[in-house]
Amino acid sequence: MKIVIAPDSFKGSLTAVEAADAIRKGIRKAIPDAEAVCLPVADGGEGTMETLVTATSGEVRKVLVTGPLGNDVEAEYGVLGDGRTCVIEMATASGLALIPEGELSPLQATTYGTGQLIKHALDAGYDSFILAIGGSATNDAGAGMLQALGARLLDEQKQEIGFGGGELGKIAEIDLSQFDKRIENSSFLIASDVQNPLVGPEGASHIFGPQKGATPDDVVLLDKSLTHWADVVEKTLGVRLHDQAGAGAAGGIGGAFQAFFPGEMKRGIDVVLEYSGLRNHLPGADLVITGEGKVDHQTSSGKTPLGVAQAAFEQEVPTIIIAGSIGDGVEALYEYGVLSIHSLVKEPLPLEEIMARSAELLEFCTEQVIRTHIHHIKQGGPSYADQRYD
Amino acid sequence: MKIVIAPDSFKGSLTAVEAADAIRKGIRKAIPDAEAVCLPVADGGEGTMETLVTATSGEVRKVLVTGPLGNDVEAEYGVLGDGRTCVIEMATASGLALIPEGELSPLQATTYGTGQLIKHALDAGYDSFILAIGGSATNDAGAGMLQALGARLLDEQKQEIGFGGGELGKIAEIDLSQFDKRIENSSFLIASDVQNPLVGPEGASHIFGPQKGATPDDVVLLDKSLTHWADVVEKTLGVRLHDQAGAGAAGGIGGAFQAFFPGEMKRGIDVVLEYSGLRNHLPGADLVITGEGKVDHQTSSGKTPLGVAQAAFEQEVPTIIIAGSIGDGVEALYEYGVLSIHSLVKEPLPLEEIMARSAELLEFCTEQVIRTHIHHIKQGGPSYADQRYD
Repeated sequence: MKIVIAPDSFKGSLTAVEAADAIRKGIRKAIPDAEAVCLPVADGGEGTMETLVTATSGEVRKVLVTGPLGNDVEAEYGVLGDGRTCVIEMATASGLALIPEGELSPLQATTYGTGQLIKHALDAGYDSFILAIGGSATNDAGAGMLQALGARLLDEQKQEIGFGGGELGKIAEIDLSQFDKRIENSSFLIASDVQNPLVGPEGASHIFGPQKGATPDDVVLLDKSLTHWADVVEKTLGVRLHDQAGAGAAGGIGGAFQAFFPGEMKRGIDVVLEYSGLRNHLPGADLVITGEGKVDHQTSSGKTPLGVAQAAFEQEVPTIIIAGSIGDGVEALYEYGVLSIHSLVKEPLPLEEIMARSAELLEFCTEQVIRTHIHHIKQGGPSYADQRYD
Repeated sequence: MKIVIAPDSFKGSLTAVEAADAIRKGIRKAIPDAEAVCLPVADGGEGTMETLVTATSGEVRKVLVTGPLGNDVEAEYGVLGDGRTCVIEMATASGLALIPEGELSPLQATTYGTGQLIKHALDAGYDSFILAIGGSATNDAGAGMLQALGARLLDEQKQEIGFGGGELGKIAEIDLSQFDKRIENSSFLIASDVQNPLVGPEGASHIFGPQKGATPDDVVLLDKSLTHWADVVEKTLGVRLHDQAGAGAAGGIGGAFQAFFPGEMKRGIDVVLEYSGLRNHLPGADLVITGEGKVDHQTSSGKTPLGVAQAAFEQEVPTIIIAGSIGDGVEALYEYGVLSIHSLVKEPLPLEEIMARSAELLEFCTEQVIRTHIHHIKQGGPSYADQRYD
């Protein structure tokens, strides 16, 4: 029996790799000789790099870069098993998690480190990039990243502006003469589910600024600065980012990729499914097991299980979801190839205890689910009495 | 597909009948045309009468009797579908639940009402009895029951003694001349898991007296009284109850059945399995679903699921258990024919909320379990792609 194991992380308790490992152990308890393929996945957010590197047997590079507030941080990027594609999680260089709670500074925070990671990978000879742009601390429209790659952002006095979205209002000219030439010969796939425009009431500053520490006054200033930036970009390149869907992703870095980089933007889960090789492992599979901390009927949660199930459904392989929490209305998932949905919770326990024991609980639940599922999986196979108590 | 549904109650939230109904609904959601046989069971304790009456399409009789403290109570007994066997739960006439918390009186509490139920059924022409003797408030060695059936328990002055274990020390003579003659021509099957002797440190008074309200002094007095009673019974009938296994069940009423009634004592679950007709429904069944509030590896909990699984195992039918709570070490149940064990809990919730929603949760869990189980249940049946989304 061949089972493909493709969970996301169980947030706060298990990474996708740990979850896949627990599921594999549970399968092996039920069927010691099962062929279990571990392909931990992610939805394009946190864990995307790790899961793609794991799924393709790639490797991780560590690089010292400038963090969001100008301090040094050790960031990393992944090189996939194909030896040419790099996966960069913006959050590793410019992420919210790098800043202590009280020190969020959306006016100052820069994407410079993300640009340095790209430059490091270009220097190493790579020309294919996947950018997972969730979890950013920045609202600088990607200006820092462009600076790290050679663009000169000049004010009226031809002086380079400083870091952060608060500086963008000063820009008079974008000088691309020293912008890294290798970029136009590379491909950039941006993994993002955010469709917001760059500016305005649905733009980066208004919608995502507050969670990065922006006060109401900051939001107004940032939106105004990003509008000015978009005006200058339009004047420079003829690309109008203001209302462009996706330009508002990750503090506006989405727009920078759209204007200055060759490539495209796709849903995170689609990028992950494409590069993890999941589809290549589905032929011959009897079952896919996926999971996430919480699954409900909305796309806001459970994006990974749904994407995995859809991919498996295309090849007529059934998917079982195991989640920490199952919300209401999940029966809607049946239409997308989901056979059933189970919770790893096995008794009334507080959330903290469940999270602390989640590897063990996930393993147990998987064992039970597989025992429930298997005994007639092979048509014409051994009878129940022969195989159930091995 | 034929599925036998044989759960116990989920204590505090669902009766066995309600649990079976929720499971049936879940099965029907997964397989609209499934043949689902509802046989709610019990372990010989609370719910035994209701489940056997339901399983055999029998009926319930209500009778006004003397309660444990001498007050009138409306008790009931069941007549099974065979039209000749009565099921009496002692607790309905002489149970702890009939007495308000502060008024427990183990010295006074009588089994008289239980005797009245038997007499009512004898008067109605029945001659086969199942007695479920859990949950009693009494410690009178069954003396009250014998009185209700015509036995005269006389003191030195040839006066009838009063109610309760506290009176037994006065007995000088047991006069059976008016003891109901129909009893010796009837059969009595006593459903009890208690193996304690009538008296001594492991006897009824020491082990079960305290939970019926006996103080340490009461326990000493009750044990002494029951010892005297056993002496008189031995003198009268030649039957020595003192150290007899099971004589200490239900405040010593177990001993009264052993000495004064024709019949035998069996484990509650075995009695229920025998009379529910479960075994008759197993041929041709593809699966049994059972369940209980809590399942663990000990026999102290989960007696019903284990007994059901063993009966099904004899006929090579797999059993799936759905529980409110799953304890550790339940993998030991695999050896007894249990295919898998699932919890109806689907997210971290407080016990009260789970209990309030348990019917809905049990239905949902059953649906998921059946969906996981079925799609290849029929060897040579329709393929997954044909049947999974009906």
